[in-house]
This record gives sequence, structure tokens and C-alpha cells, in this order.
Amino acid sequence: MENIYSHRVESLRKLMFRNGWDAVVIGGSDPHSSEYPAPRWRQVEWLIGFTAEAGDVVITQDHIGLWTDSRYFIQAEQQLKATGGELHKTRVPGAVGIPQWLSDRAKVVAVDGLCQNVSAVQELNDALGEEGMVVDAPDLLDELWDGRPPCPVTPITTLDVEAFGGVSRSCKLEWLRGWMSEHGYDKFLLSSLDEIAWLLNVRGSDIDYNPLVISYLLVTQDYVRWFVEKPGLMDLDEEETSASFVELRSDGVETMAYDEIYAGLSDQKDGTFGGTVFIDPSTLNSHLYGFIKDSFGPDCVVCGTSPVILQKAIKTQSEIEHLRQTFVDDGVAMERFLHWLESEIAGGRDVSEWKASEKLTSFRSEVPGYRGNSFENISAYGPSAALPHYVISEDDPVYIMPRGLYLVDSGGQYLTGTTDITRTVPVGECTFLEKEDYTLVLKGMIDLSMAVFPRGTAGCQIDALARMPLWKAKRNFGHGTGHGVGYYLCVHEGPQSIRYQYNPQPLMPGMLTSNEPAIYREGLHGVRHENLVLCREAGSSEFGDWLEFETMTLCHIDTSAILADLLDDEEKAWLNAYNERVYRLLSPHLSDEVAGWLRGKTKAI
Amino acid sequence: MENIYSHRVESLRKLMFRNGWDAVVIGGSDPHSSEYPAPRWRQVEWLIGFTAEAGDVVITQDHIGLWTDSRYFIQAEQQLKATGGELHKTRVPGAVGIPQWLSDRAKVVAVDGLCQNVSAVQELNDALGEEGMVVDAPDLLDELWDGRPPCPVTPITTLDVEAFGGVSRSCKLEWLRGWMSEHGYDKFLLSSLDEIAWLLNVRGSDIDYNPLVISYLLVTQDYVRWFVEKPGLMDLDEEETSASFVELRSDGVETMAYDEIYAGLSDQKDGTFGGTVFIDPSTLNSHLYGFIKDSFGPDCVVCGTSPVILQKAIKTQSEIEHLRQTFVDDGVAMERFLHWLESEIAGGRDVSEWKASEKLTSFRSEVPGYRGNSFENISAYGPSAALPHYVISEDDPVYIMPRGLYLVDSGGQYLTGTTDITRTVPVGECTFLEKEDYTLVLKGMIDLSMAVFPRGTAGCQIDALARMPLWKAKRNFGHGTGHGVGYYLCVHEGPQSIRYQYNPQPLMPGMLTSNEPAIYREGLHGVRHENLVLCREAGSSEFGDWLEFETMTLCHIDTSAILADLLDDEEKAWLNAYNERVYRLLSPHLSDEVAGWLRGKTKAI
Repeated sequence: MENIYSHRVESLRKLMFRNGWDAVVIGGSDPHSSEYPAPRWRQVEWLIGFTAEAGDVVITQDHIGLWTDSRYFIQAEQQLKATGGELHKTRVPGAVGIPQWLSDRAKVVAVDGLCQNVSAVQELNDALGEEGMVVDAPDLLDELWDGRPPCPVTPITTLDVEAFGGVSRSCKLEWLRGWMSEHGYDKFLLSSLDEIAWLLNVRGSDIDYNPLVISYLLVTQDYVRWFVEKPGLMDLDEEETSASFVELRSDGVETMAYDEIYAGLSDQKDGTFGGTVFIDPSTLNSHLYGFIKDSFGPDCVVCGTSPVILQKAIKTQSEIEHLRQTFVDDGVAMERFLHWLESEIAGGRDVSEWKASEKLTSFRSEVPGYRGNSFENISAYGPSAALPHYVISEDDPVYIMPRGLYLVDSGGQYLTGTTDITRTVPVGECTFLEKEDYTLVLKGMIDLSMAVFPRGTAGCQIDALARMPLWKAKRNFGHGTGHGVGYYLCVHEGPQSIRYQYNPQPLMPGMLTSNEPAIYREGLHGVRHENLVLCREAGSSEFGDWLEFETMTLCHIDTSAILADLLDDEEKAWLNAYNERVYRLLSPHLSDEVAGWLRGKTKAI
Repeated sequence: MENIYSHRVESLRKLMFRNGWDAVVIGGSDPHSSEYPAPRWRQVEWLIGFTAEAGDVVITQDHIGLWTDSRYFIQAEQQLKATGGELHKTRVPGAVGIPQWLSDRAKVVAVDGLCQNVSAVQELNDALGEEGMVVDAPDLLDELWDGRPPCPVTPITTLDVEAFGGVSRSCKLEWLRGWMSEHGYDKFLLSSLDEIAWLLNVRGSDIDYNPLVISYLLVTQDYVRWFVEKPGLMDLDEEETSASFVELRSDGVETMAYDEIYAGLSDQKDGTFGGTVFIDPSTLNSHLYGFIKDSFGPDCVVCGTSPVILQKAIKTQSEIEHLRQTFVDDGVAMERFLHWLESEIAGGRDVSEWKASEKLTSFRSEVPGYRGNSFENISAYGPSAALPHYVISEDDPVYIMPRGLYLVDSGGQYLTGTTDITRTVPVGECTFLEKEDYTLVLKGMIDLSMAVFPRGTAGCQIDALARMPLWKAKRNFGHGTGHGVGYYLCVHEGPQSIRYQYNPQPLMPGMLTSNEPAIYREGLHGVRHENLVLCREAGSSEFGDWLEFETMTLCHIDTSAILADLLDDEEKAWLNAYNERVYRLLSPHLSDEVAGWLRGKTKAI
């Protein structure tokens, strides 16, 4: 086990010993609770070599523990071999979280308070009890990590809402200030990057696949301060960024340096910290929270859920109109890709998962307004698809053979929206089990698509619709059925979800959510069908107000692997109408060859 | 508005004025948080004339407010006319509860602490804040209520578990004591009547339809004290009761008088109150809780959920075996009734709702082990059925006409279980809307019946299955889909439910729950189909452990009002198999005439 990761863990243990820490918690996030952190904050990867997007690590003198969810169980088992660490499964029945696990194993626990949010540290504090102690050690890995990357600095752009949809910056600020004065908050410190990007109508590329700018934002009735790596940005000497700063300035948004956040929270004339500060403990980092509590006094800090999260989730009418075109464009790229893939395989040419992924990206990049992918393409053939978040190995290419199932989960970032689509397609003869899994997952996706529900219904109340066809066959999948999707923002956003787990947030008109039931069979295959669905009003009756989904994603669903007997008439009718709509809306934008091919693919069953 | 109820409210207002109370809260329950209180505690009915089973009243000097749920909205609107009171709807979106409503309308609020549980009073206390005050005024209506009924005293019987199923008293006490010592509780005070009846294997008839004995129970490692109206019981001079006391005594259960509960909580030798007391704040009344807190000291009182609730809900194998026979017997009574009803109507004879109800009770009373009905029969024709909890008017008989739908919701108390069944039957030509409602409700009931789900799933996660067919037609019903059912105990019990509202309690093997979707159309008709379903194991797979329902209720579902196009093949197959099973299991116990009629009724569609 002498390897780079074991060596790093040993260095950390020496540091722990010198400081009298029984345990260290290294979170998988950054100072902004981002789902995907920039390289500087891939601390879990640096320390133990676990490369997935979600995972927290606990190190004690005799234990390396990784906490992650079912999406990454297989990957974790593989990557933990380097250090002999142990996988602690989260989101499973009887799961023991980090606070609970540490409660009877450690007294002094150090955390990088910059990379843990307030709620997580409070939970840990509660679990350790009066005899225990949480030590805030910001950037504690710094002294061990040679060449740790700096905070990224990338060009900044502002959005033209006239052209690309949404609401103007000044309207959004006016709305937020109204909310603040209604509640009596003098200051609101935002630290969640997509909330800041949404509120200011700014985008950057500090984080792969997420068009965000690493920053904090302080909003008061009198001024707005945006804390961003301005000196670095000025060095870029790049026109769009400079113009953005001018535009922001004209809307009353001052820019200050990222590390001025501490001093910048004061009323600068006399350096005092006055008024009531509102913060969201689910995203603010614990280190900054400690500073705020000390500076303003604990009674002046109000914790709550940021209203921006819900407001951002509800797409406006102009955003929805732009989205319709975006889904046509994205669907065209998908159909061109699927047509290409089928031709290559039919022609007996070698297609690796990697090559397919590159080809898909190239089709998507031809779309006007394309700004990159919304996450790393999952291009997975056969057993590869059994890993829900499969990452292509560059060293060991996997070729797509003319049999079984190929799964592709991908999405684009466009000026007019963010997409996320999964198609599983037969690339040759399929086994009965592959067809059965394919059909049952599809049945669940269709049943959820057809749902109608009263206003006030939360996603967890209808999650079972997507699972019941699988459940009846005693099959299941370990991740959520649906997540919110941003508008040229993060491909995962809240507050709504469609999950087995409780989440009281009602689904509301304007929310864009994924619908992606699945099944994974290690060593065999994986099936996932994913569309994005828009929640919309479905009218009223004497029994109340009704909501339904409009499926926004446009890309045909392959019917050749369907066991038709497993679908009822209503489901078949949905499928045929969907495929017909796909053909009608996409074919005018396709070459004759691809359109003709799509005509065949969308024949009714 | 000069009537008896207005007069009573005015008397109460004078009492309030004299005592300096801004408001009085009168709860609809008794000192044991019973769902159905004995006449002594029908305070809401006495005060304002509201006769339903659930409702709380708030009186201020200028307001009479009644809080109740959708089952009773229509009834409330009618009965509130007597006093000009206002209906406050509960369990609807945006509902304002009593504490919230009072928070800015009153400072000093008196409650009858005997008839409010600890949780309710704490919530009220929190809402009133530091400036407000809750005054505990036990039996505050006593001085206004001439001839208030006393606490009921009825014979007591003990159950023979060998003959009738279940677990012996000593095993149950051993289990409970094990749980107490595991948690370090010295004393456990039970006040919920069905928990006490279950634990002691005793039954009485102090409350209509609920075979319970009004009492408290104190369990310690050394002794068990049952506080019951013993003097009154001795006066009954009734053999079974005396024998029960002897049997209890031999199992180490001392009986003490009901009003000795206060002194009886002490370690009697020196009258001190020692040790740690466990109580369940959701059922203990606030008055007694105050006494316990004062006597033992607040640090010695531990609040939590009684473990008896869950244990009681999980039927044992012997109970389940007895239940199967009970459902055959109950089904035979139902089929004889439905056959009689159809014959009477076909013969042109007058059948009132009341007469039908009496006839049903007479059929049921012929079942061996019958101990009464489990609730008041709902026998409702046409528009009557639009009231979910319709009560037959004795003054104004409603006759069943040979057209439309008749709904009958009823159940029996038997030594070997409690039943609860609703059938809606066409008694002549039905309108299209009646048929459509009939079919959609049935579709929901079938879909829930067929559910398979992973161990750990709560009822609220599958509730939408029963509603989706209605939701898709923008229809709904305002009550829960399913409630737990006791074993020769209350027809409504927890902890599980199948509801739209969140209830995290997983469904577990052995739980008996109703499955009763419905629809109500004021002035037209009501449809409800109700079976009891037993949760049972459905095997394991690589994806986990699976549970399903076994439908226990046996009584055919009329197919003549079904719009067959609205059912899919799977639903039709379920229905045909169910009706066939009903015929197979019931016909051997029916006369040739009724069996022949049932053969026709259970023909496959």
C-alpha cells in the first residue's frame, strides 16, 4: 500500500498528531457548497484518490472512511483500494452519518471550515456533545499540498435578458430587497455560486460544466458588493469582462476582491458591523459564518433558506419560450449523433465509448449559443452502463459491439438553457433481461410523465409512479428519479426533487425537473431513460387546482428493445405521441437522410 | 339565535369574563386522547351542538370557532348555524391551526387540561409566546353543565389468547419491561386506552364501538398498577369482571381506583415520587402531565413515542390466522345483506337507509364471536353518500330508490378481530358520471392493492397510486386513503397510515390497513370502495427486500357499474381474481340461493 495516497494520509496523520486532533473531516465541496468544486478544492481526490463528484472523508489514526451514495459505490470500492479505506454508504437504510460515526470515536475533530457548511458543522458539534470539540482549521491541507491550484479566474459575461430570456438584474435585486425589508433583514450574504450568477445575470467558467464565478455577494438596501477575484480578472485584460464590470457598476453593483469579504461585510466608513445579517446555513461555509457571528454578534445573524433558490427554480415565461427552441436544437444534435452511431456500427467501424462521446460533443457544439457541456458525457456500453456515473477510462478504451445496450447521458450549456438527456439504445441483438429492464424503466418514465396532481404535491409523493413497474418485478435503482435543472446554470439545482426520500418542496408551475428512472446490473448492463419535464398548470375543477408535466426533451425513444406486452394502451399511446412529436419538431432541422432514418425510428408501436 | 347552544356559549363567556380568560379551547377528546369519547367528554357537542367525531372549539367574547377536517365540512356548516360559529378547515392548504389563530387574538387562554394532550398545550404555549399564558382549568365546563354524565362503568373481560390469538399478558409485560430497562426508564405511564387494553389483554365497553376500559396504567419493573373505576365495577357484581380482576392479580396487575392515579404514581410506602417516568405526550393529558412534572421534577420525565403503538399494529401470526376466518364470517354477513338489499329493491319494497343499516347489523350479529359494530354504520343512498361520515337522520328517513348508488361502510368487533368495509353498489340505472366515478375510485383501490414496495416504504409514498386515476380526471377526495385497524380494538389505529400527508412510519409485515379511495359530489352521490389489506413479505432480490399487500376483506365488488374501458388488463385480472376468490371462500357458507346469486355477481368481466 505504499503509494502516493497512503503517503498523503500519513502526512495528514502526523499533522493531526502535532495538533492534538483525533479526527479530520475533509469535505468534497468548496467554500460555496458547490456540487462540483474547482481543482483547488478537490481535496478528497488529492488525499485518497477518489474522483467522484460526491464524497466526504474522515481520517483518524487508524481509519480512512469515505462517505458517498449509491451512484458511486462501485467506483468507491475500486478507488479505495489505493489506501485501504472503508466505504460508508449514505442514503441507504440504517446509514450512519459522519457526525454519528465520530460521536463515540473522537473528541477533537478538525474540519476545513471553508469547505463545510454551517449546518454540517453544527450537526457534528451536536453529535460530539459537550465533551467533544470541533476545531475550525481553514485550508488545513495547504501545508501538505505542494502545488495546490489557486482559485480559478476566468472571463465574466453578463446576460442580455432581452435576447436570451429571464428577468433583469435590477428587477431581481428589487424583488430581493423587498423580501429583505419585509422580513427586517439589513444585509443578505449570498455564497451559493448559482444563486449569485442568477441574481446578477452573470456567467463565468470557473468550474467545469458550471457557468459560474467564484464569489460572494452582499446585498443591502443601499449597496450591493460582489466579492470576486477582480485583480486576476483585470489581468485577463479581456473586453467582455471589462464591459461586464461597467454594466454591473451602472446597476449599482460594486466589485471587490474575493478576499476582501471579511472587511467588506462592515459598513466601511468606520469599520463597524451593524444591522441584521441573513445567511443560509445550508450553503454558507462554517469559517465565514464564525467570522460573521463574532463580528455582528450572534443575535444579529438570522439563518434561513435563501428565497433565491425557489425563485430561480421557477422559470419565467420568456425562459420557457427560449427553452422550447433549445430543446429542439439539443434534440437535433442528439438525433444526428444517434444516427451517426447506428451507421458506424452497421458499417462495422470501430467506435469506442470515448469516440462516441467526442462525436456527440461535436454535434452539440454546432448548436448556436452552445457554451459547453453541462456535465461530463457518460458514454457507456454494456457493463460500463451499470455504473450510474461512469467515467470513460482513457487508458483502456471500451469498444461498442453490435449487441446489447449503449447508454448516453449528456447535456449542453446554452445561452438559452441547460439540457440533460439520457437515452439507452440497443446497438444489436438484446437479451430478454435487457429488453425487460429497458421496458420496465421506460414504463416508469412514461407513468411519471403522465401524472396529474393537485397543486401542493411534492416530488416525493409521486416518485413511486416511476418506480412501481420496477418494484413489481422486485427491481429498483438507488438514486433519485428527478432533480431540478437550471437555466444556463447548474444541471442539478433545488429546491424541488422527485425522490424516494422526503422533500416537502411542492412541484410548482415553471419548475424544470428531470425524469430518469433506471436500473443497474453490475457486470451486465445499465438502463436509464431521462427526459426533462416542465411542471405546468392543468386547470381547475371543483376538486382543486391541477398540475401536470410537459416533456421538454425532444429525442426519439427507440422502440426496438421494447417488450410491447409490458406496456398498457395508455403508455403505448403516450410513447407513440411522443415519438411523433419528436419527428414533427426535429425533422425540419435534419438532413433528408437523418430525417428519413428518424421517420423509421418513430413509427408507432 | 336564541337557542340552547347560544345560551351555553353565553354562560361560558360569563365564566371567562369572571376568570379573566380571553379565550377557552374545548377539545373534542377525553383525558386519554381517545378518538371517540364517552358522553361525559362530548363537550363540543354539549357546547355548540356539533356531533361529529373530530372537532375542537375556541370561544372568545366575539367568536365561536370550530376546527375540523374535510370529512365534516358539510356537517359543520349545517350544525354551526345554531350558534353562528365559524368553520376553520383543518388539513387543507394554508390551514391556520388553533395555536396560530389564537396567537394574535388572546393572551390568557384557558384549556380543559384533562382533555388536551401535552403536545397540543405545548404548541399553544409556544404560539402565545412570553406575553401569553395557558391556564389549566380541568373540567371547566362542570359548573355550567347540569347533569353531566359520569365516567362510564361497564363489565370487563380478559381475553383467552390460546383461543382467540395474540400474545399473553405476561409476555407483553416482559417485552415492555425489557424496553424500559434498555432505555433506563423506571416507570411508564400509559394513558391511551387501546394501548392499555392491548397490553393487559382486557376489553370493556366504556366507549361505543371501542371495546375499551377507561383507565390509566403504570408499569414498573416491580409492579403494575391499573387505575380503573373499580368501586363502580364492584357494584356491577358481575362474574366476568370479578374473574378478570382475579386473573389480572395473578399476573401481578394491581387494580386501583381511577382517581387514585395522582397518589398512585408515588412509591407508596413513603409517598415520594422517585425514578424516571416515561410518557407519550401525544396521548397523555396536559393536566396529569403537569402533576407528574411537579411531583417527579421536570428532569425525571422523559417524553417519547410509546413503543406499544407499533407493537400493537404488527399483528402476530396467530392473530392473522384468526383474522382470515373473521373476514370469511364478516364477508358472509355482507353478502347476505347485499343479497337481501337487492331482493327488497327488486321486489319494490320500501327500504330506508335506517332499515338497511339495522338489517346489516342483524346479519353481522349472527356471526360467532360478534361483540358489536366497530363504528356506527354508514348507510347512505344517493346524495347522502356525499358526506363521508354520513349519519342517518331518524326524523327524516331516506328511502333507497331503484336508481343510482348506495354506499354502506360498516364493520364488526369480533373476539378474533375488527373489520371495516365499504361497498358502493348500484341499486338501479346509473348515470355516466356515477359509473365513471365508481370505476375511477375502483381503479385506484386496485392499483394500491397490487403495489409492491421495498421494505422501509411509508404509506405516504404510495398514496398517489390510489389517487392517480382520480387525479388524471382532476378529481380527488379529502381524507386519507388508509388507516391502521386494531385486533378486536379500535377501528382506527396508528402508527401507519396511507395518506397524502407526510407520515414517515414504514409499512411493516403484519400491519392491517384500510385501502379506501373515494369521491364525494355534494347533492349527487358518493363512491367509496374499501378493503382491509395486510402488509406481508414478498421475498428478496438483488435489489433488496420486498413487501406487498394481501387483501383480507372478502365481499364481491359489483361489476355492473364499471366502465370497462377505464380498467387496463392488469386491473381487470386483479378484479376477476378477487371476485373469484370471494366466491370460492364465501359460497360454502351461504345458502344455495345467496351462493347462486353471488356466482352471478362474481362473473369475470
